[in-house]
Amino acid sequence: MIRKTIAVLFALALTAANCLAQESLPAIKEDFKPSTLNQPGQEYPQVNSQGYARFRIQAPLADSVRVSLGLGGRGGTILTKGEDGFWTGTTEGPMDEGFHYYNVKIDGGKFNDPGALNFYGSVRWESGIEIPAHDQDFYALKDVPHGKVEQILFPSKSTNTSRRAFVYTPPSYEKDKSKKYPVLYLQHGWGEDETAWSNQGRANLIMDNLIAEGKINPFIIVMTYGMTNEIKWGGIRDFKIDPFQTVLTEELIPYVDANFRTLANRDNRAMAGLSMGGMETRMITLNKPEIFGYYGLLSGGLYSPEDLKDKAKPKLVFLSCGSKERPDGVKKASTDLKAAGYNAVSYISENTAHEFQTWRRSLYQLAPLLFKN
Amino acid sequence: MIRKTIAVLFALALTAANCLAQESLPAIKEDFKPSTLNQPGQEYPQVNSQGYARFRIQAPLADSVRVSLGLGGRGGTILTKGEDGFWTGTTEGPMDEGFHYYNVKIDGGKFNDPGALNFYGSVRWESGIEIPAHDQDFYALKDVPHGKVEQILFPSKSTNTSRRAFVYTPPSYEKDKSKKYPVLYLQHGWGEDETAWSNQGRANLIMDNLIAEGKINPFIIVMTYGMTNEIKWGGIRDFKIDPFQTVLTEELIPYVDANFRTLANRDNRAMAGLSMGGMETRMITLNKPEIFGYYGLLSGGLYSPEDLKDKAKPKLVFLSCGSKERPDGVKKASTDLKAAGYNAVSYISENTAHEFQTWRRSLYQLAPLLFKN
Repeated sequence: MIRKTIAVLFALALTAANCLAQESLPAIKEDFKPSTLNQPGQEYPQVNSQGYARFRIQAPLADSVRVSLGLGGRGGTILTKGEDGFWTGTTEGPMDEGFHYYNVKIDGGKFNDPGALNFYGSVRWESGIEIPAHDQDFYALKDVPHGKVEQILFPSKSTNTSRRAFVYTPPSYEKDKSKKYPVLYLQHGWGEDETAWSNQGRANLIMDNLIAEGKINPFIIVMTYGMTNEIKWGGIRDFKIDPFQTVLTEELIPYVDANFRTLANRDNRAMAGLSMGGMETRMITLNKPEIFGYYGLLSGGLYSPEDLKDKAKPKLVFLSCGSKERPDGVKKASTDLKAAGYNAVSYISENTAHEFQTWRRSLYQLAPLLFKN
Repeated sequence: MIRKTIAVLFALALTAANCLAQESLPAIKEDFKPSTLNQPGQEYPQVNSQGYARFRIQAPLADSVRVSLGLGGRGGTILTKGEDGFWTGTTEGPMDEGFHYYNVKIDGGKFNDPGALNFYGSVRWESGIEIPAHDQDFYALKDVPHGKVEQILFPSKSTNTSRRAFVYTPPSYEKDKSKKYPVLYLQHGWGEDETAWSNQGRANLIMDNLIAEGKINPFIIVMTYGMTNEIKWGGIRDFKIDPFQTVLTEELIPYVDANFRTLANRDNRAMAGLSMGGMETRMITLNKPEIFGYYGLLSGGLYSPEDLKDKAKPKLVFLSCGSKERPDGVKKASTDLKAAGYNAVSYISENTAHEFQTWRRSLYQLAPLLFKN
């Protein structure tokens, strides 16, 4: 089953390269603006109102410059050199809404776009670009009370080091010092790290906005590094959950319960993850059903009624993916769970693939369902 | 005076490129190890026990690859291509201890080393490399209680946005909920941002270690973005302190005092900064002597007794720089201040230039002197 899950995850990950919105290509509108994820003062990369991306990179003596984003199977976007020594090019079609990782091949080496900010994915800091989405308001930085994202270093005997986690606390956390909060443990995907959910996922802003609108009961989110095994390409084939399960359940959770004002019990503790983080969530919640009361798999596998049989019953099972992934599998699993008497909810992100826009939206859908005891 | 200060800062910044430790070059020892600032799993760049750095970058079809680090005036380190398509090269001499920014010129374009982590400096995310220092223990990640680094988003009416700051709180902050703390406002240099002091500066680890050894009274550190003006090369020529002074003194400080357990008065509030952050510290403390009780300029200008005359007297003036900068100026300014009755302390970081090792050491020297009321 684990092997199968991994195979599915890899298949899903491969579809991510094919992130253009459609194959019939509209004429390009010349209303390009700098991506919101550019480095300060940088004009390129740019994005237009249709979702086309345009790149411009200086390398006057290079022989070839290619951006990894573009139509799947065509090897990305080939840039062409101008007389000024800048290479420019535009994707062959509009891209899906939301965040995309990319990199730049220059004369056969893999580098980043010097105009764009970097985001950790694929076991490297990649360039990132943001295609404005019709629903971007829910993760926008607004003039509302903001929670904090705290970097903590917690002791880990099992790995013999201090490990890093980020902890989101809601705006009210510093006001009423007697109030205790439920906690969501939220995991990144393969090749990412504990920075992913707040950087590319904007989890803190999603929470701030939901709380400001009164749509959720405020809770804490804890995000840590889930690739406790060796970090190598293909290393996931030998994935064993034990090292990370030990870090999470025996070291991080006790540390968080000791250092934050948490409601430290199963009914106030959730675990969710995207892609590989979903696989981890699935394995750990099934191994330790007494620890977590709410489960969320975002493009990260499924539960069957058989999986959950004879275990402490979860208060909620949340399953999601993009419409360009395998939505039928998610819907069917949810239906099967409901038929077996479980509180299961499925969510399909329209017109997105195995990428962060799917997971931003999934968190937005999941958060209001959590901790409704 | 401002114009003169800026000129001095630029002169200092230019010396930073010349960061090799000496001109007589010892034979290279073949004990190279990956830099501690490499991306996960990356073998290059490497550093040997003498402080030489070796680079290895894949770009099989490139015509020229050059790393910006190396002997000043010689344009850095030129890499040569092997049959495997990797370009390799070693600095012509040992580098100064500590952290260095760098980038890679590939066929005339400026990129980053895909093996190294990125750090924001020079108004771009640069590659970073760490030359192990004889005194690296004071900023090492150790098995001691760790404070937190919190990202806050504070409302700023003057710039019409939510602005980001990082706040270090000591390990004891979460224990005794009645205790209040002094605050150091700590500024980065030109082209850097609010991530610099905890990423390349390791300010949180310096504090954790000093506190664990009982060498300081714990305090809070607040780090925010100081380049409130337009971010352009040469923009500092038109530098006006007013926009940042407003953000700091009218927006950030009141926010911190309202949201953290601070001792909200002059004698428990310090300001310090490196390079341009020192220039800002100098201007703001002289404009607003009623707000700050302790001043620190790290490679960032000087105070004269004339500057401080007829103002609320600072409890401490701390001046520092690297021995490869202008140590005589720092020492003389400190002597002059002491002669005029001020509590002035100077510190010279041996064998370092206008770089972060100077500033890590300066913070380590400054912290025990603060808030000794």
